[in-house]
Parts: sequence; C-alpha cells; structure tokens
Amino acid sequence: MSEDAFEATVAAVRERVDPSSSERERLRAVADELVERAEDAATERVADADVVQVGSTARGTWTAGDRDIDVFVRFPTDIDRETLEQYGLEVGREVLPDGHEEYAEHPYVKGEYEGFDVDLVPCFRVDAATGIRSAVDRTPFHNAYLRERLDDELAGDVRVAKAFCKGIGVYGSDLRTQGFSGYLVELLVLEYGGFRELVTAAAEWHPQVERDPESHGTRSFEDPLVVVDPTDPERNVAAVVSPANVARLQHHARALLADPDPERFEPREPDPLSPAEVRAQLAARGTTPVAVRFDPPDVVADQLWPQLRKSLDGVTDALDRRGFDTFRATALADGTAALFVELAVAERPAVERHDGPPVHVREHATGFYEKYAAMAETPPYGPFVDGDDRYVVERAREFTTAAAFLRSDALFDVALGSGVERALADDYEVLVGDEVATLATAFGTELAAYFSPRP
Amino acid sequence: MSEDAFEATVAAVRERVDPSSSERERLRAVADELVERAEDAATERVADADVVQVGSTARGTWTAGDRDIDVFVRFPTDIDRETLEQYGLEVGREVLPDGHEEYAEHPYVKGEYEGFDVDLVPCFRVDAATGIRSAVDRTPFHNAYLRERLDDELAGDVRVAKAFCKGIGVYGSDLRTQGFSGYLVELLVLEYGGFRELVTAAAEWHPQVERDPESHGTRSFEDPLVVVDPTDPERNVAAVVSPANVARLQHHARALLADPDPERFEPREPDPLSPAEVRAQLAARGTTPVAVRFDPPDVVADQLWPQLRKSLDGVTDALDRRGFDTFRATALADGTAALFVELAVAERPAVERHDGPPVHVREHATGFYEKYAAMAETPPYGPFVDGDDRYVVERAREFTTAAAFLRSDALFDVALGSGVERALADDYEVLVGDEVATLATAFGTELAAYFSPRP
Repeated sequence: MSEDAFEATVAAVRERVDPSSSERERLRAVADELVERAEDAATERVADADVVQVGSTARGTWTAGDRDIDVFVRFPTDIDRETLEQYGLEVGREVLPDGHEEYAEHPYVKGEYEGFDVDLVPCFRVDAATGIRSAVDRTPFHNAYLRERLDDELAGDVRVAKAFCKGIGVYGSDLRTQGFSGYLVELLVLEYGGFRELVTAAAEWHPQVERDPESHGTRSFEDPLVVVDPTDPERNVAAVVSPANVARLQHHARALLADPDPERFEPREPDPLSPAEVRAQLAARGTTPVAVRFDPPDVVADQLWPQLRKSLDGVTDALDRRGFDTFRATALADGTAALFVELAVAERPAVERHDGPPVHVREHATGFYEKYAAMAETPPYGPFVDGDDRYVVERAREFTTAAAFLRSDALFDVALGSGVERALADDYEVLVGDEVATLATAFGTELAAYFSPRP
Repeated sequence: MSEDAFEATVAAVRERVDPSSSERERLRAVADELVERAEDAATERVADADVVQVGSTARGTWTAGDRDIDVFVRFPTDIDRETLEQYGLEVGREVLPDGHEEYAEHPYVKGEYEGFDVDLVPCFRVDAATGIRSAVDRTPFHNAYLRERLDDELAGDVRVAKAFCKGIGVYGSDLRTQGFSGYLVELLVLEYGGFRELVTAAAEWHPQVERDPESHGTRSFEDPLVVVDPTDPERNVAAVVSPANVARLQHHARALLADPDPERFEPREPDPLSPAEVRAQLAARGTTPVAVRFDPPDVVADQLWPQLRKSLDGVTDALDRRGFDTFRATALADGTAALFVELAVAERPAVERHDGPPVHVREHATGFYEKYAAMAETPPYGPFVDGDDRYVVERAREFTTAAAFLRSDALFDVALGSGVERALADDYEVLVGDEVATLATAFGTELAAYFSPRP
C-alpha cells in the first residue's frame, strides 16, 4: 500500500462528501431560523426552556447532501412528562405547521422546512447524561461532548468514515442494519485520532474490543465491540453492532489499506434480479427453496426487524430439527414480507428413527417396547435392538416436506415474533419451488445481493 | 407369570432337545471308537500322547440331533509345533480317511464318521490353561471343569438355555453372530444355578455385568458381559458377545418370564421376500436405497464378517459426512456379497457451505478469503461473512448423490476391510433405487428380517 494512494483516495472522497461553503451557509441560516422560532414558541410556554441544535449538521460532520436538522427543545425537570409532551407537540406544530407526529420514546414532530428534513424533539434538561429521564435527554450531552473535541480536521475524517461505513453497508444503528451509528463513528474517529488510524486499528482488532474514552466504565458487556459512552459510564454506544458487522468493518478496513480504491466508499447497488433470474440461480444451486409470504404487521421497522429475525430463526431451527437442513435463509420486508429459506434436503422418508431407552433400564424400556409393540399397523417398524443396547423404532414421520410443515399448525409452535405471529395467524401463503421466484417482483435487489453474497 | 407355566414350557422344550437314550448310546459308542482309533494312531508316533473327547457331546449338554464329535489329540510339550501339526494331520487322516484339512490356529482334520461330524484336533498337553501354547490347548481344561460340575439336572438346563439362545438368534460365538458360545451358556447356567435362575437374573442385568466363578480375575474388561474363564483369570469368555446381543437376551428373558411360550425357543424363519416385495417395502418407507454388490473375498466367515462390518461402517460414515443420512444399513454375504444402505436423503444441492476462520484471525482469514475470492467462476458463492464473524463460502459439492460417491475412487478413501477392499478393487457394481430389489434373489430371507426387525 502506498501512503500517497491512501491519502489521494481520502482526498477524492472528501471532494464528494465535504459540504460546499454555500451548503454550509444555507444550512446554518435555516438551522438558526429554526432554533429562533422554536425558542420563541418554547419560552412562551415555559420561561426558562431553551433550544439546541444537535446531530451531525450541528457539529459539521454531515456528509454533503444530508438534509437532516435536529432541533431539541429542553424543558426544566420541574414540569411533568405529560406537560412536556403537550408543549413539545405544540412547539413542533408551531414551527413546522405542515409536520406530522412521530413516536420514539415520546411523541415529537417531524416536518419539512425550506427543503430540509427537520425533527423537533422535546426533552428534559438534566444536569448530567446519567440523570436522564428518557433516552432523548442524552442527545444534547453527546452533541456537547463532540463539539468540544472535533476540530475541522477530525470532522473531515468523520465524514470519510461515515462514507466508508455506508459504502460497505454497515452504517446505521437501526435494528435492520445493526451497524454503526453516526455518534459511534464520530467517537471512533476521535478515539483513534483519525480515519486512517481507525481502519488501521480495525484491521487488527481481536474482538472483544473495548474502548473507554473517558476511562469511567463501570460494567462489562458481551458485545464484540464496546465503546463506553463518554457521557454515561453504563452504556455501550456500540451495543447494537452485530458481530458480523464488526467482522465486515475489519474485512473492508484491510481491503482498503491493501487497495485504497475510492470505489470502496460507494454503496453496492446490485441490479435487481427478475423472477427468471431467481429461478436460474436456484436451479444452478440445486437447493430446495420455500418461502412464507405474509402481510407484515403494522409496527415500526425497529420493531419489525427483530421480530422477522426471531421468526426466521424459529422456522429454520424447526426445519433443521425435522431434517430439511437449512442451507441459507433471509427475511425480506418492504410492503409485503417473506421468510425465504433455501433447504439442502427436499424430502425425508415416510419413516423416522426413534431411539428408545437402553434395554437394561427395565421399567422405562418395557414401557417403550409395549407402547410401540402394541401398534397393529406398520409403521412402526420394530421395536428392535440397535445403537448397541437400545430399543429403536422406525415410526411414521409427521412431515416429509418442508412445505407440509409450513402449511400446518405446527408452524405456530415455533418461536415467532409476536407481531409476525399475529400476521401469520391472519393469513399467509407458502411458496414452493419456482413459485418462490415471484418474490423477485418485490425483492429483486435483496435477492440479487443474496445470490451474490459479499463480506 | 405362573410357575407351572414356566416349568411346563421347560418340560416341553426338554421333550424336544433332550437326546433319546438310543441317541446317547449310539453317540457314546461312536465317540469311544473314535477315541480308541485316535489313541492308537497317536501313541504309535509319540508314546505318551493321549486323546480326549471334548465339547457338548462329551459332557451331555448337546441338544438332540447335534452330530458334532470333537476329539482332541494331546501331545507332550517337548515336541515342536511343526511336528505337532504333522502328527496331528497324520492321525486325523488315519482316523478320518475321507476327511479334509481345515485351519484354525493350526491345521486339523474334519470329516464324517458313521454319520457324525467329527473334528480331530491336535493340541499340546499343558499343565494349566494359563500355560497354553495355542488357543485350542485350552479346550480340554474347559471340558474337565464343566464335566466335574454339571450334573444331569444342570445339563438339562444347559440344553434348554442353548435352545433359548438359538430361538432368539443369539447363539454362537462366530464373528457373524457375536453371540453366546456353548461354553458360555454352560458357565452361565452353572453360575446362576439353572436356566430359570439365569433368565431371572438376565432380565434385571445392568451391564457391565461381571461374573467370576472362581473369583480369580486379574484384569478389567470393557465388554457389557464379563464371565471370567474359570481356567484362565485373564480371559473373558463373553468377550465376543455384542452389546446388542446382551440386550436381546435381556429382552427375551423378560418376555419369557412374562409369557413362557414354547414358541420362544423356535428360531424365527421369516419367509424370504421377492424382489417385488422389496420394492414395495422401500416404496412404503420412502427411503433411498443403494447397494455395493461384489464377489466376497475368499476368506473364512470369521474373517469376512468383521471386514464386512468395518466396510459398512466406513461407507455409512462417509455417506453421513456427505449429508446423505444413513437411515439403516446391513451387510449381506452368502456366495455374493453386498453393502446395503437405506438413506434418508436422495440428493444434495450442487453447492455446500464451507465455514472459514473468524475474520479477526487475520493471517488465516486473509488466506481463506484470497483463495476463494480468486476463483473466477460461480460457485463458489462468496466469501461472505456469516456465522456471526466468519468467512463462509458456498462451494461446488463433489457428490450430489450417494451413487456418484460410491461409483468414484473416493470409495477407496473409506476404511474398508482389507479383503473387501481387494474385492472391490477387482470389481463391484452400485445398485440404485429399484435395482436394489434384485438382492432379494440371493438374500430374500435376510431382507425379510431386515424389513420386519424384532429384538
């Protein structure tokens, strides 16, 4: 690797991700106007309320083209939660008359303003991040911490690091992505002292990796990556990052150091597959595809995705236990939803082996023998003696295909996410063989990525 | 269970298995004549040679209709082994002019004499069974031990016990059966004090079961049943008995005590299946049958059967490792030979998952990644990150059917018995699907038992 090549790549990326001075000025002007209007509306209601702009656009770490402005209205802690919510919505509606209500830990207003996407969020003004009453109260502390420490140079490296995480598909702490939040990327760049220092370190990580910028951590974590929140010693900022995403960052860090190509900062956008292309893929792989298609429950993405993963795990575990050997599987959701499973085994015999107790365990063994010996029809075959000293029978198997299992009530014995379970109880269809290819209509891009997997 | 019913059954069995007095007299006369003729021939060569009749017909424990007379010619230990073999064969040929040579640990003569099957075996006359020079030297000690201890009552119980072991298929210490030898049955009846006492005890056995009639055992054994040889403290008379045969004896002991039906002493002889019946069985079970058919190597049964078992284990292990899931399997041999395997899985995909190292193990992981990433064609799919933090590829699978594996040279990477390996190297055929049913021509009875398995 040449140092020049790396720096040249970083420079090229910064060309793309650094906001222009006109973008900065425009954003500054709009943000100031928003803060002023919010202040007017807030102090009308509570005299000592105040307003802060937070997020990447508040600290110069946004990447060019981002249109998000986050404005937090802070109320003193002597008002009650109900009043805070009421005032928060009132201020939001006044500042963003065309906005709408959203709900995180409590409601807030989201709306467009002069071409920017604005979140106007009420919170309590507490003395320290450790004394927060709701998760959003922490945000102003994060903001203050980073503003104090990120100079222009580091802010530039943060933008490059964010672009890199986006390029390799690990950016975002939503529960679908399970990746790196903006705040986490900023902390990591700050902690390692730059983008290049971060990727050099990540290339050599041996998880569990633990960083504690303020050396104040008070508890231990199971997560592969731990970054103790500088504003809260009990919190791991990287708690949501999956082990796979840590591994992906490591892989791509090494790849970037070995070959610092600016292309690595460009998100991969595979061409969507057509149904015919999905059929061709499945035929080439020789797997047995099945899918459970259903209308997703009406919950937010951060609730839906953990439920989809839990449901997919439950279904694949149940199929594995029944001998259909999951080869690979994925959950799909976007308007419609599906649990898509590629199996290695298309069909099992009409019989299954069932091992009983060792013959010498007399009471238990005799009970087993008498139960099966009393059955008049075949199967069961046996009981006979096998596995050295056990009674064994070959009894009728309940499901000889995965589809038969998925179409049966036994599907509901699987541990499913609660919303998914309700959705399936309402209605679902099982797609088998080439029918699965119809999923390409809704999920062509996801299936393209699935059939061309990369780190 | 009624005591009368049990005793009535034993009486009925004894009706069948006790030799008549005319059979006894006839056997006595023939045996005496054989011993006398052998003595003449032996002492002509070595003055202090002697001759003993051994085996069940020497101690009144044979079952009616047995035609085996065993005559041992004992030479002093001051002659060498070569001379013993030479004299042994000479005596054998003189006594049994129409006999032929067989070979156990050393050669002996087997022949018919007055309608009886006679073994005429040379051995060394040693001072104690612990000082034997070859395994056959031990036999006269066994004979002497039992003759001293088995009265008419116990001899009768031995005959019943042998009939029972034959009826349930566990009689015989040959390496195909891996069951109870005549000597072992006699020791067990003696040790427990009768047939009924033996089955009552066996019904409650908790292997490992250890009996040491002379309380002189000096070593420990792994076998489920241990009966220390009264003539040799280092030998387990039951060493050859498989765990399954111990379990079978336990099962049938309980069954006999619960329902003392004389039928239980009758060997099971299932009607042979036709090829069409085998096809029907396989269709009902829905398994995938394959068989490797070959001409068995020219070795004695006690060499062949361990080799067949080893080969069958090797083949089923290899098929299991390749994902074809052996459902049940058996070796067949009788003129022709076959390894017959019923599989639960007919076909695997064109690809197989191959897990690489965790990404953080940098050197190893990078080697894995570069190896597969350099392959130009698909498969492999990947490398990608899965299993939390590992590189994974889906690479081309070598064999998608069991038959393809069995037809390939990879079959010879399996641990096969040496004679079987030579036979397969010479020639073999792989039978698939309905072709397997042709085995019914040679093995109709074995396949009938296979498809109606009982303890």
